Amino acid sequence: MVDLNPSASFSLKIELEIPNRPGALASIMSTIAAHGGNLGDIVLLQRNLKFTQRELMVDASSTEQGDKIIEAIKSLPRVKVISYSDRTFAIHQGGKISVESKLPLNSQSDLAMAYTPGVGRICRAIAEQPERVYELTIKSNTVAVITDGSAVLGLGNLGAAASLPVMEGKALLFKEFAGIDAFPIALNTQDTEEIIKIVKEIAPVFGGVNLEDIAAPRCFEIEQRLRQELDIPVFHDDQHGTAIVVLAALYNALKLIGKDLSQVKIVINGAGAAGIAIALLLRKAGVSKIVLCDSKGIISSQRNDINQSKQQFAVDESGNLADAMQNADIFLGVSAPGVVTPEMVQTMAEQAIVFAMANPIPEIQPELIYDNVAVMATGRSDYPNQINNVLAFPGVFRGALDCRASAITTNMYLEAAKAIANLVADADLDREHIIPSVFDSRVSPAVAQAVCMAAKQDNVAQKTNN
Amino acid sequence: MVDLNPSASFSLKIELEIPNRPGALASIMSTIAAHGGNLGDIVLLQRNLKFTQRELMVDASSTEQGDKIIEAIKSLPRVKVISYSDRTFAIHQGGKISVESKLPLNSQSDLAMAYTPGVGRICRAIAEQPERVYELTIKSNTVAVITDGSAVLGLGNLGAAASLPVMEGKALLFKEFAGIDAFPIALNTQDTEEIIKIVKEIAPVFGGVNLEDIAAPRCFEIEQRLRQELDIPVFHDDQHGTAIVVLAALYNALKLIGKDLSQVKIVINGAGAAGIAIALLLRKAGVSKIVLCDSKGIISSQRNDINQSKQQFAVDESGNLADAMQNADIFLGVSAPGVVTPEMVQTMAEQAIVFAMANPIPEIQPELIYDNVAVMATGRSDYPNQINNVLAFPGVFRGALDCRASAITTNMYLEAAKAIANLVADADLDREHIIPSVFDSRVSPAVAQAVCMAAKQDNVAQKTNN
Repeated sequence: MVDLNPSASFSLKIELEIPNRPGALASIMSTIAAHGGNLGDIVLLQRNLKFTQRELMVDASSTEQGDKIIEAIKSLPRVKVISYSDRTFAIHQGGKISVESKLPLNSQSDLAMAYTPGVGRICRAIAEQPERVYELTIKSNTVAVITDGSAVLGLGNLGAAASLPVMEGKALLFKEFAGIDAFPIALNTQDTEEIIKIVKEIAPVFGGVNLEDIAAPRCFEIEQRLRQELDIPVFHDDQHGTAIVVLAALYNALKLIGKDLSQVKIVINGAGAAGIAIALLLRKAGVSKIVLCDSKGIISSQRNDINQSKQQFAVDESGNLADAMQNADIFLGVSAPGVVTPEMVQTMAEQAIVFAMANPIPEIQPELIYDNVAVMATGRSDYPNQINNVLAFPGVFRGALDCRASAITTNMYLEAAKAIANLVADADLDREHIIPSVFDSRVSPAVAQAVCMAAKQDNVAQKTNN
Repeated sequence: MVDLNPSASFSLKIELEIPNRPGALASIMSTIAAHGGNLGDIVLLQRNLKFTQRELMVDASSTEQGDKIIEAIKSLPRVKVISYSDRTFAIHQGGKISVESKLPLNSQSDLAMAYTPGVGRICRAIAEQPERVYELTIKSNTVAVITDGSAVLGLGNLGAAASLPVMEGKALLFKEFAGIDAFPIALNTQDTEEIIKIVKEIAPVFGGVNLEDIAAPRCFEIEQRLRQELDIPVFHDDQHGTAIVVLAALYNALKLIGKDLSQVKIVINGAGAAGIAIALLLRKAGVSKIVLCDSKGIISSQRNDINQSKQQFAVDESGNLADAMQNADIFLGVSAPGVVTPEMVQTMAEQAIVFAMANPIPEIQPELIYDNVAVMATGRSDYPNQINNVLAFPGVFRGALDCRASAITTNMYLEAAKAIANLVADADLDREHIIPSVFDSRVSPAVAQAVCMAAKQDNVAQKTNN
């Protein structure tokens, strides 16, 4: 296992009492650094003649390392650890989202308008004109974040309850990046038909469905069927969100090195939801040479152990990942930590592009090959060029809801990818800046606009006054 | 149909331009009054030498009457109606609730703690200790408001979409009165087994289930089964919320006139969800003489058209509602507008109590019998003694969530009813004040405390440090 840098995911809040004399704080800082901790904010809580009390934020690289830092501080003479807490766990207490009222409720009049008897008039209006549900309820801005907990992040089949922190996080991102009200629904079943049925039957309050962390190949069937059987947009983010952002980053990476999408050979390692979706979108974008690999090597037409979703990318050649990577222009990893070696990268074509997107630990650490490739990207925020779905899904849904798209189309993905790529101005484009920051506030509106435009072109926009 | 008073459910906002001279506004006010409108706020928008612009809030008694008021104002000389809108429809634009983030999201660190990669640690913690879902997600404060749209208010089977304004309203009340995050789920099916299955499978994110506006007798089976098969509290508000508040009001009404619950004869008209639940709770509270009626009259053991839920209250006598009401001490109506006449009330026992709770139009208008009964209550906010479920359900769930009740028990209902009744001090208790106001902020905490106490007595409290 490759060593990780300290990160906010293992961040500690430590409350200390320190002797009030020069150098006392400095010695604590040295201790933290010596044990690999990364110091963030330091807050002075109080001070008297003898002592100061301070709160320190310290990023560690693992729980164990965090514990060691605490122990090391405790062993310092005359330093007292008053309390410490794991910040990630602390912010998760009670969950990350809430449901709030949009109306005041201070009088009988307020109650009579928002609830009975006044609300009955609104119910009747919708019963008479079903279309008005978009105007008179939360539907037009509300998305279901649906999972069965079968493929939670890279952690596997943790089940419904354990997937909830991710789903709440997704709802939070929907709000923060696109103003969308999203609600997490984690299902107590992993049966394809059951999932399809439930989503259809809980759909009335939702204006869109975001599928999340559902294992392949089940996720393909679920998405396809829901798209046929529901009249609201359905989007499996692990597939298409990833594919859109990868394509956006590729547009700019290729622009930088002057190669053409239609000419390059692309190796995709990982043939789950993301890998398949990336391959499909790249094909639509004009890529003809795609070699897809799974844990057993190249998806070859000679293999008889491959499911239908992989089959569509079967090639004549066979071999392992190292074989596939020879002379490839681009490597896209959506697989597992450390499966790529510097030697394998050496065999790639000149001006190689490597996106090692396994989370949290990439297929290969950037520092190992940084000088041997033209462009390197990961899924991590602590390296340049973070390939992050949050660049796509908020804007995709914002656009789809705004134009009340009856469906999600491939054209929307292509336009969204172009819109994201175009936000990096030529002057800013370099090997460490092929993609905008997730905090670039232009991203979601640009994606939304591109999606609306594509919806109109594809005749799926049911509302065109936006 | 009985004539209704002007109410906020038909409230208009009218923007006017009026000559800036004495008496101009007064003439408009007279016109509104002459057409039966009730004037609320008057806001001065702007004024110049010639004109004033004002915004008027006017309650009407129906859409038609509202239209007439507007026409009458328009016909006044030199008065210009700039715009007008239906306030109830206006506040419903875009729905009544939103999903909000509880965390800041301003930096990569925030993102790394609230979402990937940090969130993976939280998921793993829950996978390892499933109980921690209550601590680390929204579950411990989140309630599903579930309906199949089959019995929306008194309006009937309007279906899922048209029921949403009520469900959103309920979510709003949960937040405002008990700080609970509730989310509306309106189901596209009215099949009992389907509903049970779906609720079970979407349950992981919810700490409780509030069933709403589901038709009888289906609602009984659904509630009973979900209670057996889920480990979170399940509560059908139309049944038990109503029953609790009715019992609370009865405690105080009987106290006032000095009759005893165990001695009175009670007629309940309406044998749907509310009627059956009221009868069941009254029986538990010690009432022995209950005559239940449906639209065909007394639920008599001689009838062969009665379902199982009604059967348990079948009596030897038979006849129509008028027969049932003879010598009854108490009439409880959860049925239909205008089905009770003053003559029927005349045949009741001395010191009669009449709760005419059909919504929005009671079984009998209070003014018709006010002098002939000891206590009169309705479901309306514009008469004294409003029997309103909002007195019960927020506190019931607050209590059940706080002590993490594994089940809802009848004892909780009885204690909740007593807690509500006890909030009316002896000094305040009179025939027009048998129940606290829905805006009495003591209600929800008092009910919650009573429910927690009952949960502990019944050994269903899984958390006892509250």
